[in-house]
Amino acid sequence: MIKVSVIGAKGRMGGNVVNAVNQADDTELALALDAGDDLTQVNPDNTDVAVEFTVPSVALDNVLALIGQGVDVVVGTTGWTDEKLDQVRKALAEAPRADQAVFIAPNFAISAVLADYFAGLAAKYFESAEVVELHHPNKVDAPSGTAIHTAHTIADARRATGLGPMPDATETDGGSRGQVVDGVHVHAVRLRGLNAHEEVLLGNAGEQLTIRADSFDRGSFMPGVLLAVRNVSAHPGLTIGLDKFLDL
Amino acid sequence: MIKVSVIGAKGRMGGNVVNAVNQADDTELALALDAGDDLTQVNPDNTDVAVEFTVPSVALDNVLALIGQGVDVVVGTTGWTDEKLDQVRKALAEAPRADQAVFIAPNFAISAVLADYFAGLAAKYFESAEVVELHHPNKVDAPSGTAIHTAHTIADARRATGLGPMPDATETDGGSRGQVVDGVHVHAVRLRGLNAHEEVLLGNAGEQLTIRADSFDRGSFMPGVLLAVRNVSAHPGLTIGLDKFLDL
Amino acid sequence: MIKVSVIGAKGRMGGNVVNAVNQADDTELALALDAGDDLTQVNPDNTDVAVEFTVPSVALDNVLALIGQGVDVVVGTTGWTDEKLDQVRKALAEAPRADQAVFIAPNFAISAVLADYFAGLAAKYFESAEVVELHHPNKVDAPSGTAIHTAHTIADARRATGLGPMPDATETDGGSRGQVVDGVHVHAVRLRGLNAHEEVLLGNAGEQLTIRADSFDRGSFMPGVLLAVRNVSAHPGLTIGLDKFLDL
Amino acid sequence: MIKVSVIGAKGRMGGNVVNAVNQADDTELALALDAGDDLTQVNPDNTDVAVEFTVPSVALDNVLALIGQGVDVVVGTTGWTDEKLDQVRKALAEAPRADQAVFIAPNFAISAVLADYFAGLAAKYFESAEVVELHHPNKVDAPSGTAIHTAHTIADARRATGLGPMPDATETDGGSRGQVVDGVHVHAVRLRGLNAHEEVLLGNAGEQLTIRADSFDRGSFMPGVLLAVRNVSAHPGLTIGLDKFLDL
Repeated sequence: MIKVSVIGAKGRMGGNVVNAVNQADDTELALALDAGDDLTQVNPDNTDVAVEFTVPSVALDNVLALIGQGVDVVVGTTGWTDEKLDQVRKALAEAPRADQAVFIAPNFAISAVLADYFAGLAAKYFESAEVVELHHPNKVDAPSGTAIHTAHTIADARRATGLGPMPDATETDGGSRGQVVDGVHVHAVRLRGLNAHEEVLLGNAGEQLTIRADSFDRGSFMPGVLLAVRNVSAHPGLTIGLDKFLDL
Repeated sequence: MIKVSVIGAKGRMGGNVVNAVNQADDTELALALDAGDDLTQVNPDNTDVAVEFTVPSVALDNVLALIGQGVDVVVGTTGWTDEKLDQVRKALAEAPRADQAVFIAPNFAISAVLADYFAGLAAKYFESAEVVELHHPNKVDAPSGTAIHTAHTIADARRATGLGPMPDATETDGGSRGQVVDGVHVHAVRLRGLNAHEEVLLGNAGEQLTIRADSFDRGSFMPGVLLAVRNVSAHPGLTIGLDKFLDL
Repeated sequence: MIKVSVIGAKGRMGGNVVNAVNQADDTELALALDAGDDLTQVNPDNTDVAVEFTVPSVALDNVLALIGQGVDVVVGTTGWTDEKLDQVRKALAEAPRADQAVFIAPNFAISAVLADYFAGLAAKYFESAEVVELHHPNKVDAPSGTAIHTAHTIADARRATGLGPMPDATETDGGSRGQVVDGVHVHAVRLRGLNAHEEVLLGNAGEQLTIRADSFDRGSFMPGVLLAVRNVSAHPGLTIGLDKFLDL
Repeated sequence: MIKVSVIGAKGRMGGNVVNAVNQADDTELALALDAGDDLTQVNPDNTDVAVEFTVPSVALDNVLALIGQGVDVVVGTTGWTDEKLDQVRKALAEAPRADQAVFIAPNFAISAVLADYFAGLAAKYFESAEVVELHHPNKVDAPSGTAIHTAHTIADARRATGLGPMPDATETDGGSRGQVVDGVHVHAVRLRGLNAHEEVLLGNAGEQLTIRADSFDRGSFMPGVLLAVRNVSAHPGLTIGLDKFLDL
């Protein structure tokens, strides 16, 4: 049994993690903590893995504290800059245990992670590629971080194989062609009723490949969180991205 | 048998019309004319309906000449402004025959016309609506005229029923939210392998309605052209839009 | 304010109706009853409209009792045969009030009702039409009642316009072509993560029209239930189908 | 320059191959042969690779003859049984050149090959998976060979990871659930206007992954044929499946 403590347990995502940990056969809940709770309660005696799902403003401090407590950490909070990641790496180098591990994922939905990975594999074989992401209308940023990531994945694959710019004869446009991210057009739809969805469109003469990931609710992230909880301790140091734990 | 003359017969669309007229059971080809040919050859003795598929720069002159010749006209060329349409109406008022008819359609694909019409019927029942059009990468304008038309159709329906602005919490965006046409977000994708496609997305809490029209090749316009040829003479004056000839 | 009593208030759908009635500006909850409760509590003094969401085995008795109590009824329970509907009509003819009304809908999702209606309008213009429905894997019947209804809608439209059988050269098939309902091929997908979805595919040479309705959760039915509650009393007698209350 | 001879050059696919070979920068047409032509004209002096696109009844004889002539062969004709493949392997073992190569692909559309490959990678991470293939209505077999192949790909991946049967509570069905191929439900749609399309649907609680390959016309196969022509000679012996030549 993997002993799991949840930080941010009263939040919407954290609450889902508490339930998922309780329901899975191979995990058990250690501590459920939230804002104001003392993180020094978390230690190797009661916790194998801490899951941090809070807000960007406190996530770094929490992760550094948890590293100092000697436990492995799975992080779902977003907002990680290169500077923050460097601080995590530095803390890991000085951690109580030599093989301590931190895992950060921008997206825990397995379908979204696979869509991104497949887009990267496929991109070099197609003349054109664009990304359409669709979300609920309460989302404040556009496009989504996942769509930006996928655009870079596509652009990297095209560069690596020597593909030039995509064909596009557009002369007049009032903004409908979307945002160009690393040479890839990205479109963001906001629609009541939706949750989080991404579609990657790839085209050659006479053919199209479409890869679409739909996340209908927060429950869709739990298989990915559990996958991370089960794998984090076997990967010392800092690991970023759920694809690292998928057998692809 | 309806006697049909094709103006612009050597063009890609015109050539398709010639074939379609030859193949249909109830139409026969009268004259196949192109740039440089004398339109005074077209007259009520040899022609019931002239089909005009040329280029915007000459279409108005052609239509006015054909009205003067006393034949009904089906027009597939695009680029009609209100001023040009007024000149057509004026010419019809002074036409040789009292019941003369001109029909202009921005789009002859029945699937596209129905998608636009259904979008108008549905729009008043949904909180959110956006339009995504997808075309081959040789298209010079974005978004498509059809998508702009559909955006106005949706906006008109929302106004008529008193719906306010759609929900949208977007605070930061680098252009991914597309072009706002009459309050409706319109997105344009350009992808090798595609021809002409439009998707209307409508959303309420917990539900989505999607209406998609795919035109895979120019052949897709011929049923609409024949429908217009068969119906134009029963509708004296100027008629705009294939939906007028559909039994909806 | 429309006074609404909910029958089956402890069920999943009924509970959603209670919430929706409480939240809407123009409705208020009168009684929330469930199995074992006495329906004679419901009467014109406390209730304008009763909403019946129970199970097929008791729905007819409930509706007959409510008619006898002199209130209008909106019914969401399924399983209505011609015989049962005749009993409702007979009870309405002998009801306490001359203008009493009962409304029964096989589906309260507006997107699904519109998809069915649009399929009927479009079907006469296309050579081919098939229906694909997709649901969660706990559903016991296949295909869905909604898909069967849509197949009949398409078949009726084709018959009315004189269209013959659809083109289909299939010679060898082990069952992949689905179930033929009134001449229309219907396919049923069962997939974890889905709720209730229907896709109508219509095809001509060179073009396709796709109409898709997605119901992501039970909340998607509430706008339709409220629409029925607001309209039922203006339609004396038995009315079947939410499209009757849409302005199409 | 790779010297390419086309066998079946007057057929629809063969004619497309002739054009593709003429247009590519690194290939040149050697011989264009069809039924009745003498295959002994093809030899290592004039031909590096022979492309065989004929009909199942003559393909084996053609391939054996071409092996005897000492040239490498790319085969697009379908209908290969284990017995026929064994004859090819035997002929290769006795071929004039020790490193002679034959490549057979059931599908040359890169999008379709990638969809099948991605389905195999993803299948182990999802509870549910079904396949929907959609084709023009002149196709005589259902489901398509490609869909059957994808069903086996999914089933193999599930077996390898120990996944049991997919969830499915269906109790009553008149055939709408499609054909079960190796435990995977496969559905076949036939629609005028379509060419060859396949959709793989994968579902978990709260999420869905969709992979769709569209082949709009025969031109879509040419990039795959050229890829095979360029790679076949570096793979002595018999190779089956375009994925072997993709860098995945």
